[in-house]
Amino acid sequence: MSRECNVLVSQSGGPTTVINASLAGVLARSLKEKMINRIYGAEYGIQGVINERLVPLHQIFGGNEERLNQLKLTPSMFLGSCRYRLPHMLEDITDYERIFQIFYKYQIKYFFYIGGNDSMDTVDKLSDYAKQNNIDITIIGIPKTIDNDLVEVDHTPGFGSAAKYIASSILEISHDTYIYNTKTILIVEIMGRNAGWLTASAALARNGYSRAPHLIYLPERVFSVAQFLQDLNKQLKHRQHVIVAVSEGLKDEYGMYVASKNSQIDQFGHVTLSGVGKYLEGIVQREIGCKVRSIELNVLQRCAMHVSSLTDIEEAFALGEYGVEAALMGETAKMVGLYRIANDPYRVSYITIPIHKVANQEKKVPLEWITPEGNDVTEDLIDYLKPLIIGEPFIEFEEGIPKYLKIKTVFEHKQIYQSKV
Amino acid sequence: MSRECNVLVSQSGGPTTVINASLAGVLARSLKEKMINRIYGAEYGIQGVINERLVPLHQIFGGNEERLNQLKLTPSMFLGSCRYRLPHMLEDITDYERIFQIFYKYQIKYFFYIGGNDSMDTVDKLSDYAKQNNIDITIIGIPKTIDNDLVEVDHTPGFGSAAKYIASSILEISHDTYIYNTKTILIVEIMGRNAGWLTASAALARNGYSRAPHLIYLPERVFSVAQFLQDLNKQLKHRQHVIVAVSEGLKDEYGMYVASKNSQIDQFGHVTLSGVGKYLEGIVQREIGCKVRSIELNVLQRCAMHVSSLTDIEEAFALGEYGVEAALMGETAKMVGLYRIANDPYRVSYITIPIHKVANQEKKVPLEWITPEGNDVTEDLIDYLKPLIIGEPFIEFEEGIPKYLKIKTVFEHKQIYQSKV
Repeated sequence: MSRECNVLVSQSGGPTTVINASLAGVLARSLKEKMINRIYGAEYGIQGVINERLVPLHQIFGGNEERLNQLKLTPSMFLGSCRYRLPHMLEDITDYERIFQIFYKYQIKYFFYIGGNDSMDTVDKLSDYAKQNNIDITIIGIPKTIDNDLVEVDHTPGFGSAAKYIASSILEISHDTYIYNTKTILIVEIMGRNAGWLTASAALARNGYSRAPHLIYLPERVFSVAQFLQDLNKQLKHRQHVIVAVSEGLKDEYGMYVASKNSQIDQFGHVTLSGVGKYLEGIVQREIGCKVRSIELNVLQRCAMHVSSLTDIEEAFALGEYGVEAALMGETAKMVGLYRIANDPYRVSYITIPIHKVANQEKKVPLEWITPEGNDVTEDLIDYLKPLIIGEPFIEFEEGIPKYLKIKTVFEHKQIYQSKV
Repeated sequence: MSRECNVLVSQSGGPTTVINASLAGVLARSLKEKMINRIYGAEYGIQGVINERLVPLHQIFGGNEERLNQLKLTPSMFLGSCRYRLPHMLEDITDYERIFQIFYKYQIKYFFYIGGNDSMDTVDKLSDYAKQNNIDITIIGIPKTIDNDLVEVDHTPGFGSAAKYIASSILEISHDTYIYNTKTILIVEIMGRNAGWLTASAALARNGYSRAPHLIYLPERVFSVAQFLQDLNKQLKHRQHVIVAVSEGLKDEYGMYVASKNSQIDQFGHVTLSGVGKYLEGIVQREIGCKVRSIELNVLQRCAMHVSSLTDIEEAFALGEYGVEAALMGETAKMVGLYRIANDPYRVSYITIPIHKVANQEKKVPLEWITPEGNDVTEDLIDYLKPLIIGEPFIEFEEGIPKYLKIKTVFEHKQIYQSKV
């Protein structure tokens, strides 16, 4: 009896708005391919492989175009996620043996892992194991991360939508701030602990009449509170409202997180850490004394599908399809990625990169894309960012809230599946 | 020379997503009315009247349907706002004399004030002054407040859009939370210091597969930390992820704000107040010990036009028109408002209410609409809320961010105006 040719796909790391679009891309292309028999999804990333939590995606999505399209427009991760780092092969081989045993049992020929930095480490390690043990399996990484910090690619799926959320929110927050005839400083804290891409994208909020944010601080540059106060005072000389974008990961000259200087203490004397925004708010209150407020943009940065980038969604989907394409062409131990051909009009091509070049690397904002004063980004950086937030998907609403794919579906089908296997 | 018949309109209090829609309604109806010569807008609320900061809205919007439509879909306040409470007439008459002097100078026959509780106090006081001094001027209040706490009306413009933002955000945050196979408690802090309407609207996030938020705590009920922990533990017995909606205004049995028990202390020993969410996060961390996160929904609750309620926008616009209608019919010292005729299909009518019945009152969530356990809302409350978030406006995007009316326009026209007067 000849072996089947099956696909296994899984999602890992932090969620993004478009990680399901990449999953939809893998599914759409795989479902079209006659060579492929079944498509399994592992729940909760690589841990779902280890724990044999596999769901039959071909049953759930096969012949159901509408459901596939809904998956494409559903934020976060349909299959769930994990934050699990495989030990090095030389340290402990248990996980590897288990994973490849599952691959064998389910006749997996192609394994696609959608994730960020840490997930590419998993792809790298599994590829090495397969190679060393002469196992004929294709392993492909499909990138996603709102942080945009993967090397060797122009940008990462998930980033454009997060950038659009940040820019749109700051524009609306600016409308909210401008209304009082009072000197006001507003500090917006943005995600991205080591790389400043997301904070930089706040600059996209600027339009013909609103120049907010007026100051932008990225973690790539040393942050000085004294300079910050000086920058603010300079701004206050010629404008009533100063809106500031700061990265959650700002560090001082000693490499210490600015946020770590802020701690909360409750009535019992217990201490918890609070954000850099709140910390700077306190400083402004004392040192400048005008009206001040800080806002921490929350996890909606990575899951607000209702204000996502169509460019981002389409690219994420296409990368999923391209991953399957590359696998069918015989590539393995690769990450697929985006290469920018041109900016105006914006065009990208899809490429593959040897996985060992990508895993465990981090791409930061180049220092030449930050102004010499360290309180803004350059036009070059804005030109780079602009095309990534263009376009809006049509989001269906039901009873006044977005209609997303119901996660329950998986569990319902899992029942069917488990009774069959 | 006969006197002109002019309109003055202004906005006051905190912003909402649809307060410009009400302004657009006032403008649309006034521009159609042959009896009306000019339409002025006072910048920064009643303070703009006192300081004679008037802009010629008939010049800005007359014959410009497109601009008027853009105003309708622009969040926050086109004319700016103030938080200014008129002194009682018997204490100090200066402001009153100044305001009515400006009314006289600009030949104002109709004054419309769009605002919440405090703004209705202004309408009330100015109406009294006009009556006592036999001044023939019509003064009408047009309601707005995301808090939904005005009495004598079914609900207030601004609330529906805030409720939709809250419900949609909680749905997306839930998608973000469900992905890890780990016990997690997520606390979402929602605006509304005294009235729980906004927090209650979190319940609208529930759909066929996601029951989040699983617990809801309104400020109308005494909050007990012990009961809260008990509720959480009960939830954790049968679900992995517990999402909780809490009002920023929760109070303990002594009437103390729960948030006030939380203070922040920085490296210099300075203390600032933080929210109830962060406070409860700390308690959960210590007492339950599972993964916990708190999110404070920020000012986007009151300005996120990109996910606003079309029902809310249309009602706000219609109330603006109806305010002019009522004024033309000879009504004065009134607030216009919404009366609900039926729920299914949802229908409202527009009414006028004597202003003294509304000013300085506060409508809270009725206790019978909170479950006996005090940790959820009843179906009756959900039925009341549901129609208010229905429908989505078409928001135009430009370069990837929402295209709103450019505030600068006012200032440009003010120049023209000031050179003419």
